[in-house]
Amino acid sequence: MLILALPGAAAFGERLAARLHCDFSELARHRFPDGETLVRIDAPLKGRCVVLAGSLDHPDDKTLPLLFAADAARELGASQVGLAAPYLAYMRQDQRFNAGEAVTSLSYARLLSLSLDFIVTVDPHLHRWRSLAELYPIRTQVVRSAPLVARWLQRHVDRPLLVGPDSESGQWVAEVAALAQAPWTVMAKVRRSDRDVGVKLAERGHWPGRTPVLLDDIVSTGNTLLGATAALRKAGLAAPLCIAVHALFDAQAQQRLLAAGVTRVISCDTIEHPTNAIRLAPAIAKAVLELAATAAPVRES
Amino acid sequence: MLILALPGAAAFGERLAARLHCDFSELARHRFPDGETLVRIDAPLKGRCVVLAGSLDHPDDKTLPLLFAADAARELGASQVGLAAPYLAYMRQDQRFNAGEAVTSLSYARLLSLSLDFIVTVDPHLHRWRSLAELYPIRTQVVRSAPLVARWLQRHVDRPLLVGPDSESGQWVAEVAALAQAPWTVMAKVRRSDRDVGVKLAERGHWPGRTPVLLDDIVSTGNTLLGATAALRKAGLAAPLCIAVHALFDAQAQQRLLAAGVTRVISCDTIEHPTNAIRLAPAIAKAVLELAATAAPVRES
Repeated sequence: MLILALPGAAAFGERLAARLHCDFSELARHRFPDGETLVRIDAPLKGRCVVLAGSLDHPDDKTLPLLFAADAARELGASQVGLAAPYLAYMRQDQRFNAGEAVTSLSYARLLSLSLDFIVTVDPHLHRWRSLAELYPIRTQVVRSAPLVARWLQRHVDRPLLVGPDSESGQWVAEVAALAQAPWTVMAKVRRSDRDVGVKLAERGHWPGRTPVLLDDIVSTGNTLLGATAALRKAGLAAPLCIAVHALFDAQAQQRLLAAGVTRVISCDTIEHPTNAIRLAPAIAKAVLELAATAAPVRES
Repeated sequence: MLILALPGAAAFGERLAARLHCDFSELARHRFPDGETLVRIDAPLKGRCVVLAGSLDHPDDKTLPLLFAADAARELGASQVGLAAPYLAYMRQDQRFNAGEAVTSLSYARLLSLSLDFIVTVDPHLHRWRSLAELYPIRTQVVRSAPLVARWLQRHVDRPLLVGPDSESGQWVAEVAALAQAPWTVMAKVRRSDRDVGVKLAERGHWPGRTPVLLDDIVSTGNTLLGATAALRKAGLAAPLCIAVHALFDAQAQQRLLAAGVTRVISCDTIEHPTNAIRLAPAIAKAVLELAATAAPVRES
C-alpha cells in the first residue's frame, strides 16, 4: 500500500502511513503560467493499492489535482485507488433549496466515483441523504467520531450537558451523549443568510451544576455557535465549551467565540487546525485496511 | 435553445445568442464561506437544448461550476447539454513528459464528457493527439480560425511572410499561408523551462520587402514570441506583427512584445482580450447549430 498525500496534507498522510506501516509519498503539484495544474507521483505504483490522503475542505482547488492523481495512479498500474478524506466536501447542498440550483452533492459524488475505487471519511454531513451509498456508487466507509468525542468528554469535562446548536445535530449529539452517559438537548436555529443565524434553546431543562458542551459536526463561520452561546448564557447556563468534528473556521472566528464567553474550543483532527485535540488517524487507518481488503485486485468496469 | 454564459463570459454568450436568435441567461455563482461553490440557472430548461458558453482559460476555477451547471440543466429537463468553449483547456499535457506525471488532457476529457453531450471549440492544441475524437467520446466540432486569420491578413498586411515560432505551429501556419497566398517558414524552439524559451530561425530564406507575421495558437507568457522576434531581427528581417488565436497573455507580456520591436499584437476573440481583432462567434454559432441538430432528443446512456 502507498499513502499519497494531497497538497497540504503531508502531516495527515504521514500519520496514516505510520499507522499502516506502509510507504508514503507526497503528490507533487505544479501550476503552469496559463493557470493549468500538473501533478506528479514520485513513487512506484505498479500492482499497489494507492490511497490518496487529505481532507477536502475548500475543495475547489483540490478536486482537479485529486482526480488527475487518481487517474495517473491507475494508468501507471495501481491495483486500486482509494481516498482517505477525513472531511468530505459538497455534502451540504443535499437538495435544490431554490429553483434552478444545482444539487452539488450529487454531481460531486459522480465526479469522485469516476476516478476512485473507495472512500473513507469521518462523519460526512448526512442530513437529507441518509447514507453515502445513496450518493456514491463506489465502496465507502464512514468513521464515526462519536466514540472518540465521548471518551474525550469523559476524561476532560466534569458533569457535561451536551447541546446541539440545531435540530440537524440532534442525532449525533444523542449518540455522543449516550456514549458519554450525559444528558443532552438541542436548540432551534433560524437561518437568515450564510452568515446571519439566530439560535434559541428549544426546551428549558433543569441541569444545575452542568457544564454546557456545544457540539457541531461542521463549524465554518462560527456564527451558529456564537448564537447558541448567547442563548445559553441568556437562559442562565454556565459558559460553554465547544467541540467541532470538522474545524473549517479561522482564527478570527475562534477569537469571537472566546470573546463571547466560550471557555474552550476543541476539534477532531479531520482538518488541520490549532484546536485539534481528538485524533482520528488510527480509526481511519483501520477503515482503509478494511476497504482495501474487500477489493477485487483488478477493477471491474 | 438556451445559451447559458459561464461566469465571466456574458459578452461572448450574448454574441452567440444574438447570432442564434435564441434565449440567453447568465449562470449565477455563489461562493459559500466554507469555500464551496453553488450555481443556479435562472431560466426554463424543460425540453430545451442548453449550451454552456465560455472559454476555459484558467480552467481550475471554472470546471466545477461548469460540471455542476451541466448536471443541473439535465436534471431540470434539458433535452441535451452542450458546451461552446472557444478555448478548451488541458490540451497541452498530451503525454507523460516526466515519469509519474498525469496526462491531464485525458483526465480532463473524461471529466467533461461525463456531463456534456457535445463540445464546440476553436483550434484545440492538437499536437500528439491528432483529433478531439481520440480524447472525447462525445460529439465535438472544431472551428478553424485559419480562414478568418487569412482574410484578416489579406485585408490588413501588405506582402506578409508567415512565421511559425516552432515546429508545432507548422501545420497551422502552412494552412493560413495557403489561404492568404503568402510564403511561410517556421523557427526551431529550445524550451529550458516554463518561462525560459530560446528560438532560432530554422531556414534563412530570401524574402525581401516582406512583413514577418508571427502566428501562434496559444500565447501565454509571450516568451516564445519574444525569442522569435529577437531571432527575426537578428536575421535582418523587418519588425514583425504577432497574431495569436488564443490570447492567454497579460498586459505586461504585451508591453514586453511591443518593447522588443513587435509593431502590433492581435488575436482572435476566443478569450476576451484587448488585442481581439478577429471575431469567431459567427463560425461558433454555425457549429453549435450543426451539433445540436445531430442529437437524438433524449440521451441514450
